[in-house]
Amino acid sequence: MSAHERQDTTTTAAGTFPVSSRNRARRMPERSSQAHADVYRILDAAMLCHIAYVVDGQPFCTPTIHWRVGDRLYWHGSSASRMLRSQHDRLPVCLTVSHLDGLVLARCGFNHSVNYRSAMCFGTASAIEDADEKARALHAMLERFYPGRDEALRPTTTQELKATSVVGMTIEEATAKVRAKMNADNPEDLDVSVWAGVVPVQTVIGAWQPCPHNAAEPHREGVTPYAPGLRLDDVFTRLAR
Amino acid sequence: MSAHERQDTTTTAAGTFPVSSRNRARRMPERSSQAHADVYRILDAAMLCHIAYVVDGQPFCTPTIHWRVGDRLYWHGSSASRMLRSQHDRLPVCLTVSHLDGLVLARCGFNHSVNYRSAMCFGTASAIEDADEKARALHAMLERFYPGRDEALRPTTTQELKATSVVGMTIEEATAKVRAKMNADNPEDLDVSVWAGVVPVQTVIGAWQPCPHNAAEPHREGVTPYAPGLRLDDVFTRLAR
Repeated sequence: MSAHERQDTTTTAAGTFPVSSRNRARRMPERSSQAHADVYRILDAAMLCHIAYVVDGQPFCTPTIHWRVGDRLYWHGSSASRMLRSQHDRLPVCLTVSHLDGLVLARCGFNHSVNYRSAMCFGTASAIEDADEKARALHAMLERFYPGRDEALRPTTTQELKATSVVGMTIEEATAKVRAKMNADNPEDLDVSVWAGVVPVQTVIGAWQPCPHNAAEPHREGVTPYAPGLRLDDVFTRLAR
Repeated sequence: MSAHERQDTTTTAAGTFPVSSRNRARRMPERSSQAHADVYRILDAAMLCHIAYVVDGQPFCTPTIHWRVGDRLYWHGSSASRMLRSQHDRLPVCLTVSHLDGLVLARCGFNHSVNYRSAMCFGTASAIEDADEKARALHAMLERFYPGRDEALRPTTTQELKATSVVGMTIEEATAKVRAKMNADNPEDLDVSVWAGVVPVQTVIGAWQPCPHNAAEPHREGVTPYAPGLRLDDVFTRLAR
């Protein structure tokens, strides 16, 4: 069931995020859902997210890798990064994942659109201070994207762990939005003789580029799911289960 | 020349955006550039962007379509949308475009990375009030993505124009960041027997899904550049020239 088939909700039902002025759909509620399953499905199909946060009144929009454990989202980076330093202690953020799925061409400019899936998640970011908890979170990231790989890697050093910040937030509110359909023209426009329809797009995995130093038979667990030709969102989704 | 081959700059040279605390690279300056050409190249390869803005202290990260005219960026949507209403009159925003180009697998967790291109642009958003200017901006959007198409469409009505808001901003500061290389392992890790290298990903155009009401020989200008199998970023780049 896709999110756009669900109805908006103004109360907190089991399995849905609460609705406030932050995440209430202002328009096209038929495209929106606050159901956990709809939000998680969109998050779990992606590695890249964008995070909005504010420093001294200035908004920043930073792209980064995210991963999810239950209703918690995590991201990481250099301890020196502006984003991670500013989010160290309880900073409100909005983490958004978007997939562009197609260009929608209609018979008037107004009805042009795109097919997409997006999840917008609100919460309060804080750094994970405890070294063991941080190490576990980084292991969870590797397992989420490359299951079985971490055991074959050279272990992380104390210095590397110190140089890395991990930030987490509990999803307080969220909205999933999906458009996944054909062009929607006005009936009176159907005889306008211009090509209308959908140009689908998808992100696919290309031919692996191996490091020239690889052994003849290296440990490949965690990489094999990324078979060339597969859709990247499908692989991320499967690995998240 | 890719952005990561350029050096960071701390002064405003011709053809570069000025540098302040907002857009100075805090880390890995070798991946960063404030050159107009580097920023524009990343913007022009995309349709989707994410915009960070603040309403009552709460940051929002909203995905939308953007287009560029010189050093100005534009986006649009329903006049009822929260984002466009809040950005009506001089609101600071950060507009970011990101491309995920590959997963970079190394021999320790710390050296894992991704290949990417991102452009982070700072400015002040304001709505375009004048109806003629708004209509020209919307025409520019159609021409940018679907050149030659607008002339075959049913013209936009006054009501549709009223229902649409267009917001623009001049890029005050910007930073491009690029990672486009192989895994970078520590020399002492090279004998760890795990597959290392890059798993490239790209967004490609699929088979068109025509509207069943299309005429036998519809006007196709503007759609033909989106040939199935092409890389979407390549098509957007070519159309932006």
